[in-house]
Amino acid sequence: MPYSQDIETCLAAQIGAGGLDNASLDAGLGRLGDVLARLRRDAASGKDALLAQPARDDDLPLIRETAERLGAAADVLVLGTGGSSLGGATLAAVAEGAGLARLHFLDNVDPAGFDAVLRGLDPARTAALIVSKSGSTAETLTQALIVLPWLAQADKLAARVAMISDPAKGEAGPLRRLGAHYGIAVLDHVADVGGRFAALTNVGLIPAAIAGVDPARVRAGARDALAMTLEAPKAAQSPAAVGAALSVGLARGCGCTQTVMMPYLDRLDRFGAWYCQLWAESLGKGGHGTTPIAARGTVDQHSQLQLWLDGPRDKMFTLVLGAAAGTGARIDTAPAGADVLDYLEGRTMGDLLAAEQEATRDALVAAGRPTRVLRIDRADTHSVGALMMHFILETILAAHLLDVNPFGQPAVEDGKRLARERLGAMGGK
Amino acid sequence: MPYSQDIETCLAAQIGAGGLDNASLDAGLGRLGDVLARLRRDAASGKDALLAQPARDDDLPLIRETAERLGAAADVLVLGTGGSSLGGATLAAVAEGAGLARLHFLDNVDPAGFDAVLRGLDPARTAALIVSKSGSTAETLTQALIVLPWLAQADKLAARVAMISDPAKGEAGPLRRLGAHYGIAVLDHVADVGGRFAALTNVGLIPAAIAGVDPARVRAGARDALAMTLEAPKAAQSPAAVGAALSVGLARGCGCTQTVMMPYLDRLDRFGAWYCQLWAESLGKGGHGTTPIAARGTVDQHSQLQLWLDGPRDKMFTLVLGAAAGTGARIDTAPAGADVLDYLEGRTMGDLLAAEQEATRDALVAAGRPTRVLRIDRADTHSVGALMMHFILETILAAHLLDVNPFGQPAVEDGKRLARERLGAMGGK
Repeated sequence: MPYSQDIETCLAAQIGAGGLDNASLDAGLGRLGDVLARLRRDAASGKDALLAQPARDDDLPLIRETAERLGAAADVLVLGTGGSSLGGATLAAVAEGAGLARLHFLDNVDPAGFDAVLRGLDPARTAALIVSKSGSTAETLTQALIVLPWLAQADKLAARVAMISDPAKGEAGPLRRLGAHYGIAVLDHVADVGGRFAALTNVGLIPAAIAGVDPARVRAGARDALAMTLEAPKAAQSPAAVGAALSVGLARGCGCTQTVMMPYLDRLDRFGAWYCQLWAESLGKGGHGTTPIAARGTVDQHSQLQLWLDGPRDKMFTLVLGAAAGTGARIDTAPAGADVLDYLEGRTMGDLLAAEQEATRDALVAAGRPTRVLRIDRADTHSVGALMMHFILETILAAHLLDVNPFGQPAVEDGKRLARERLGAMGGK
Repeated sequence: MPYSQDIETCLAAQIGAGGLDNASLDAGLGRLGDVLARLRRDAASGKDALLAQPARDDDLPLIRETAERLGAAADVLVLGTGGSSLGGATLAAVAEGAGLARLHFLDNVDPAGFDAVLRGLDPARTAALIVSKSGSTAETLTQALIVLPWLAQADKLAARVAMISDPAKGEAGPLRRLGAHYGIAVLDHVADVGGRFAALTNVGLIPAAIAGVDPARVRAGARDALAMTLEAPKAAQSPAAVGAALSVGLARGCGCTQTVMMPYLDRLDRFGAWYCQLWAESLGKGGHGTTPIAARGTVDQHSQLQLWLDGPRDKMFTLVLGAAAGTGARIDTAPAGADVLDYLEGRTMGDLLAAEQEATRDALVAAGRPTRVLRIDRADTHSVGALMMHFILETILAAHLLDVNPFGQPAVEDGKRLARERLGAMGGK
């Protein structure tokens, strides 16, 4: 199993009044039996595009070929925002080797930051992957309209650029028209998979492959997680179902309006941002949803832990812990005077990380705060693929319990319209 | 003025039931008159160490000399966590030039990430700044005990290292003993300024100066903000008092248990993390406090905005907006077919950023969400110094309204004890 889940310290039986009672958990799980059966059928039939991704290999040759083509450059810009950026950045962060090229995820339109990145690069040795499902994201188009002429200063632009956009937009969308103008290959964004669910498609896997991460291993991890959740004999043994029933139960019954995602491993530094989009955009509808908060261990012990332990009882915690003990350099405390540091003497840095992980869980539990623990052996390609699939399923199952549609983001469309109107009304053109 | 604050769109008069009524705001401000007068007296007398920092220049020669000494290396490691790291990282991110050396803020103890940084560096061309107010932070000591022997492979270790620790610990603390062993200069951490308030001391200003940021300009900005808040004729004209009364009023009267800090400028990317520690650790006590959430514009429009607009009404928003219009490269939409992109034609990337900023505010206000706007001209040294001082004062004033002590972090000490016990009990030593 690529990960294990322990929710005991979220339950009232363990932590008292701030925890969820077993009856509420069971009630939630009882409501998920049917949807689990349906998801299992959809996954088996291959008709659900999202659930079909983990088992795919038909697209891997093009993913690898594109990664190698772009990765022949020294630097690769990934132009895209939200779901077009976070999945790839999360997977790329798991890379252990040097990768094919340096990746730069440009997800903002502040000229100060954007221009500084371009200034440091040579257009002849830079490639770009441009991702917009709709093909009309204003930020990404603006980036592309500036980067492509800059790249075109050097020869063979088309060899150094790829785009990903939804084929349903045909040739009419601005991104595809831009691609046609420059003769750039436009790969299909999987039509029925929304941006924030696209990490396991070419959107996430091309940047991953450029970073040196094997796309097939990511999918193997996702397959394992899919099986753990969908092939469990009972909902109570299905990790994502348990997580969904727990999250929704704690929100409704225990006032946990916030959910803190805290991995303790540097390679998972980007995971929280990916999870935050997935959870917030999928569930934050019609007054529903809880607020996801990305945290990092051990850093946020020295920043947020005071609030978590002694502030309002409005949070659940998910700690993602790795097997760090014994790894890293061994500590020799003699130069500091071993007598005052005997707890560190002969330990490794990984021993300290391991102790801090468990101590934070202990402190949260002692304060009666609902704390779920996900354990992985290593933050590697396989386990991150599994964690991504786990939380995609948990999000979909939580949406079912909240009776909201996890797909689409209707409220955001208003903001996009307002931005266009503001640009249209600005002077100085 | 280095910044302006607009809270109109947090008030019930503007946004309806989700906003604060004027009477509650006035009641909060009424309670702050006395504390503002006391802070004004303390600042004038110089007896409050924290309020005295903006006016200091006696320590600037040593700050600059240390920055130049360490910055003679190619790379500088900053070893420290929480308040020993976030302030310096926030200030360093504002740098516009190349700086004296590359900075690496190492705030975690995951061997995978830590070792990867060291592997990429040459010990002979690397320096280190080691910061722990208490001198006994386990993570920082562990980092130091591994980095110092690594640096000592090359000559003249002492010339390439500086430490900052509280002089009250005398020579007995582990960090000072480590310094003595290696002959390293230990600078004094200002005794009465806690880690999360230390950005305007040598703790924040040495990394800033290495990055090319002028410490005197940071303090000049802080002085301006101090004057704006403490020398206002009435509390209602004092920006930090208004912010504090607003935050506490919205938390108590309108269910805003969360406060989102969203700068729209890349140079402020680290500001949110600094603010989150300041707010959470200072106020999260005895069941009090609201949860700070760091966000980034425009990125989180594509990640969190759906939840913010259509999820629970439990957040207030602080947007930090810059004057971006007209900056950056101009957009030529012809390659994409100008007809479909006429709203972008002839605009600059900064125009788009400016429009997105205002559109997000409009969308939040239209959804009845309390939205404060702080405006700066540029994200530069002066304005960031001012914003830091503003939020330090706002936090102290909010603590007064909540009747909590903003200094200290008593609940965290438990976790530290638990970690030491766990290390002591681990096998395999």
